Amino acid sequence: MFYLIGIGLKPGHITAEAVETLKKCDKIFAEEYTSQYCEGTLAELKKKIGRNKKIEILSRESVETGFDFSSDSAKKKKVALIVFGNPLTATTHVQLLIDAKEKKVETKVIPGISITNLISKSGLDEYRFGRTATVCYHAKNFEPDSFYEQIKQNQSIGLHTVCLLDIKNDEKEKRLMNCAEAIEVLEKIASGKNEKIGWSFVALLALGAENEKIIIGKENIEGAKEVKKLFPQSLIVCGKLTEKEKEALQVLHSGKLSNRIQKNRLEEKTEKYEMITAKALEKIKFAQELSEREKKIGEDFLGMAKNYFSDGKHFRGKGDFLTALASFSYAHAWLDAGVRAKIFYAEDDQLFTLP
Amino acid sequence: MFYLIGIGLKPGHITAEAVETLKKCDKIFAEEYTSQYCEGTLAELKKKIGRNKKIEILSRESVETGFDFSSDSAKKKKVALIVFGNPLTATTHVQLLIDAKEKKVETKVIPGISITNLISKSGLDEYRFGRTATVCYHAKNFEPDSFYEQIKQNQSIGLHTVCLLDIKNDEKEKRLMNCAEAIEVLEKIASGKNEKIGWSFVALLALGAENEKIIIGKENIEGAKEVKKLFPQSLIVCGKLTEKEKEALQVLHSGKLSNRIQKNRLEEKTEKYEMITAKALEKIKFAQELSEREKKIGEDFLGMAKNYFSDGKHFRGKGDFLTALASFSYAHAWLDAGVRAKIFYAEDDQLFTLP
Repeated sequence: MFYLIGIGLKPGHITAEAVETLKKCDKIFAEEYTSQYCEGTLAELKKKIGRNKKIEILSRESVETGFDFSSDSAKKKKVALIVFGNPLTATTHVQLLIDAKEKKVETKVIPGISITNLISKSGLDEYRFGRTATVCYHAKNFEPDSFYEQIKQNQSIGLHTVCLLDIKNDEKEKRLMNCAEAIEVLEKIASGKNEKIGWSFVALLALGAENEKIIIGKENIEGAKEVKKLFPQSLIVCGKLTEKEKEALQVLHSGKLSNRIQKNRLEEKTEKYEMITAKALEKIKFAQELSEREKKIGEDFLGMAKNYFSDGKHFRGKGDFLTALASFSYAHAWLDAGVRAKIFYAEDDQLFTLP
Repeated sequence: MFYLIGIGLKPGHITAEAVETLKKCDKIFAEEYTSQYCEGTLAELKKKIGRNKKIEILSRESVETGFDFSSDSAKKKKVALIVFGNPLTATTHVQLLIDAKEKKVETKVIPGISITNLISKSGLDEYRFGRTATVCYHAKNFEPDSFYEQIKQNQSIGLHTVCLLDIKNDEKEKRLMNCAEAIEVLEKIASGKNEKIGWSFVALLALGAENEKIIIGKENIEGAKEVKKLFPQSLIVCGKLTEKEKEALQVLHSGKLSNRIQKNRLEEKTEKYEMITAKALEKIKFAQELSEREKKIGEDFLGMAKNYFSDGKHFRGKGDFLTALASFSYAHAWLDAGVRAKIFYAEDDQLFTLP
């Protein structure tokens, strides 16, 4: 039997189920390279499960190369792997279950308290979070930014993002990223993309511990001395805040946050098309010496452009950006068509496809 | 001191921290209208915290109207409210903290195991879930569908959704929605909107309990007898599945799921505009008896329409649906403009704004 057991973020998070299971296990392994306790030690945990129990710490490699599920002992004995927080958030854990299943070793997963259970202490609604992202350190020739895009995607549907922060294990000592560093990485990525982020941040320091601290707002986070001392940390990037969330932030943490979430590409593109079409409508003139028929066509084209432009504004106002975008683009083409047909006269080749 | 304590989904989920806190409390209240244990009873929990402890069950109203934090006893005594799962997922809980803070009563939140800690047992990645939705029973004049839109929004950025299922408390007995009923509600909403959903579902029955069951796929869910017996239940609507997730579903639960996620509105709209413009390009004809100048204009207009149509297909192929949508709309306007100028001839008033 193979048990995959979440032990939470401090000794006090251990569940009755986990204690009972660990007590009857023949062998206990622990993985500690992806996280750590916010307070207390594994020695304290040992007291709860029986003094004569040994906990063998495994390296990343030994977990990733997998357990030897094919041996007889794996099938007959009770073996546990304990992990900080909740199990199965790492692909390695899922792989262990798959390996065990294929070797016909029975498995059981025992859940543990994780950062997900604590984020609502911020005052933000646990159910209004999107996918979890992991902010990584940048190094030479290694500048990942998928987490930045994930935050923007969550924001595009109004959701908050909880960001787990990188741990550097490759040097002599374990180094945990702090929230100020995480904001720095995000801002660096944004500036590389020529994007401005006015995001609202909430820092979660040593959440769950007696001395846990929640800090609201970028300036406060960057100025707090605890940011360099209290670990582990997670960073929330806020989505759209509800009134109740704003109230909770204010009352529970004396913090105020603005509701700026990054416009998504759709809104940006719609605005851009609206702006271009508005300018084109302003600059358009009838060509000189038009026949009566051409004048009539010109008035017709201009009318169509104006109508669809005003439709676009209407749809944009209603939040239907897709129809708005299509309307602005359609409106603009009527003006361009008039210019190409030499019915309209225009000079600006940024706004028109000149004849 | 006011403690808000999550007790998890069965007596075994109680954490060491929660037990220690409850042991020293003078008064313990419990709220049980939003959820329930997947196995075991509060009596079993009582054994763990001391036989002489009373747990007073509160009605929804008493929790919602709030505790009397202004009395002296609230400030001097230790009072706990225990809730199933993890606290603060209900707005009422946040309100309690706000009320306490305003009356200067100290508070402490103690996390508990919730469905969020268990969803990864399905084989799906906990970090690839979007916001949590709650599927509600429909009744006469009460047919909410915000949860349906939330699922679609999660899907639009590729994310899975865990759906909590409604509990009816207003009748004599508590009635919990099952996964088959939830799918029925979702399909009813879709059909009312003229939308087809080919979503992939995973049913989570009594997750955490000894007899927990995970069922993969709509047909299997609807056919399983446990769906009417094993409670509580939650339903996962899958987003985009990774290869590792597909493997885990297959190996751990012998289930196969297709990767059909609902096209988002952007893709649907882009496809529609492409189709209309393609048809218009096919049907367009030059009008008869055109002057040389008109013929030249007509060729120019048609050329522009074709170019932008082909640009649209290019952008759509690259996954840039926004630029594709704008291109198709722009292309179509050139054809319409030609028709209005009587350079092109067309009969179909669905495709053209006829003169």
